[in-house]
Amino acid sequence: MPARLLNGAATAAAIRSELLPQVRAFASQAGRAPALDIVLVGHDPASEIYVRNKHRAGSEAGLLVTIHKLPESSTAAEVLSLVERLNASAACDGILVQSPLPSGISKADAQRVFDAIHPDKDVDAFHPQNVGLLVQGRPVFAPCTPSGVMELLARENIAMAGKRAVIIGRSEIVGKPMALLLLQRDATVTICHSRTANLPGVAREGDILVAAVGRAGFVRPEFVKPGAVVVDVGINRLTDRAMAAEFFGDPSARLADFDRKGSLVVGDVHPSVADVAGALTPVPGGVGPLTIAMLLKNTLMAARRREQ
Amino acid sequence: MPARLLNGAATAAAIRSELLPQVRAFASQAGRAPALDIVLVGHDPASEIYVRNKHRAGSEAGLLVTIHKLPESSTAAEVLSLVERLNASAACDGILVQSPLPSGISKADAQRVFDAIHPDKDVDAFHPQNVGLLVQGRPVFAPCTPSGVMELLARENIAMAGKRAVIIGRSEIVGKPMALLLLQRDATVTICHSRTANLPGVAREGDILVAAVGRAGFVRPEFVKPGAVVVDVGINRLTDRAMAAEFFGDPSARLADFDRKGSLVVGDVHPSVADVAGALTPVPGGVGPLTIAMLLKNTLMAARRREQ
Repeated sequence: MPARLLNGAATAAAIRSELLPQVRAFASQAGRAPALDIVLVGHDPASEIYVRNKHRAGSEAGLLVTIHKLPESSTAAEVLSLVERLNASAACDGILVQSPLPSGISKADAQRVFDAIHPDKDVDAFHPQNVGLLVQGRPVFAPCTPSGVMELLARENIAMAGKRAVIIGRSEIVGKPMALLLLQRDATVTICHSRTANLPGVAREGDILVAAVGRAGFVRPEFVKPGAVVVDVGINRLTDRAMAAEFFGDPSARLADFDRKGSLVVGDVHPSVADVAGALTPVPGGVGPLTIAMLLKNTLMAARRREQ
Repeated sequence: MPARLLNGAATAAAIRSELLPQVRAFASQAGRAPALDIVLVGHDPASEIYVRNKHRAGSEAGLLVTIHKLPESSTAAEVLSLVERLNASAACDGILVQSPLPSGISKADAQRVFDAIHPDKDVDAFHPQNVGLLVQGRPVFAPCTPSGVMELLARENIAMAGKRAVIIGRSEIVGKPMALLLLQRDATVTICHSRTANLPGVAREGDILVAAVGRAGFVRPEFVKPGAVVVDVGINRLTDRAMAAEFFGDPSARLADFDRKGSLVVGDVHPSVADVAGALTPVPGGVGPLTIAMLLKNTLMAARRREQ
């Protein structure tokens, strides 16, 4: 029996439609829409798509979304100066600097840019202050992707208390906050990574398995406890036709898709996992839309906190 | 073959003796000793002992340790005002407010007191900013108990990369930072707690097992993988003679100790674990002295950063 699909897109749409009246109520009380300012430096194609999606979703939800485009050649000082201007602006509630910054800006300087965002406007929840508050169980803003996953699991009535949750990946943006949020819901949490010995065996302990490795189809059936809930956070572009054929079968609708477009967006979880898992988030249409919905929610929260 | 004892007291003494010349070098350059200010509110007997030990160890290491005693009846505003004065004082490098505050101060107000400590003087590393930096792998100060454990494991040449580490307890002060530090050393980390199903079985997965539950002798042999390294963070006062007899045998040297003193300090790990574990930290003389040594190290670091 193939896994039940956890429809992240539908859940994200539900969250957005719940936000609409709240955004309207805020706007009529405050006399302005909640304002999200997105800083986009350079021309990374994936970043341009993400920013466009955030702009569209935000506008549809009634937010005032402004995109600040800076040239590829921008210096860290120029980006910092824009962030400082937004920090000081009464008209700005939330600031998002789209990652990654161009390679001309060093890692250390990029960190300085993200750290410069005022914690009260940090709707991505990357600031150490917001990360610390999350660890301490009193978050102001929770990071969008992991909190979107939690929202999905809760709305799908997935039991978490006392269950074993295994997370593959230990990034600051997904893996670690995911672990902390699952722990707060009383799961027994294991964090795996590239140095983990017998990774399939450890992953197979999970009643809930979260894949956040950034490698197409990395999680195969032998990683999955029969009946487990599998959350696929990966967004990878597949450009190898043989791999696409192996993933989806030949012939198949998605391979035909590949042949039309020359590539496909796939997750970290191999399609064959659907035969073992009890429930599974698809890619696309799983975690991705939830991330954006939570960003909008964080922006409304930032606006409310500033009006208090 | 009984477990090898990991001598935390000796390691702590080694850390302190390494600190001595560094403290002297700082003092001769800065024209003053690194200054640690400890705030002690009320008369909690355990707190009084901890503060006395910190004072002695700090003074022996060449620090200027000042204890600020406030009456049991102090209001949160009075404690806050002292913390603000220390924040502003050029003569203060590190501030430690001894936990817990008296019951007359609410949990929320106590949190406000700890949050008021400036991150640059936060030698206990409780401030959300410092917690966040730890999560992000760029700590300024690491919390004293978990970083003391890491120091012990490193100096005892305990392999961590690729090993399974299991932590029982998810407190902000020990469990969570312990997990993050072990993760940074490439262990595969599992966090257990009161809601964990089959706790002995999960604990038994650990090549390294850290007990931080605060219950005397809670971890029994069935929790321990044969040969595992067991770190006992618990400091519990045992007052029941029958329990002491069951723990240490009757007759035994420690039971005679109990009969002299009327109580004993014991860890979270039952003595019978020594028959299964490969290595074990004793209580007392294990993790406790390391906590104080790391506090002194953090104070020196705070002083150096302020002089830069």
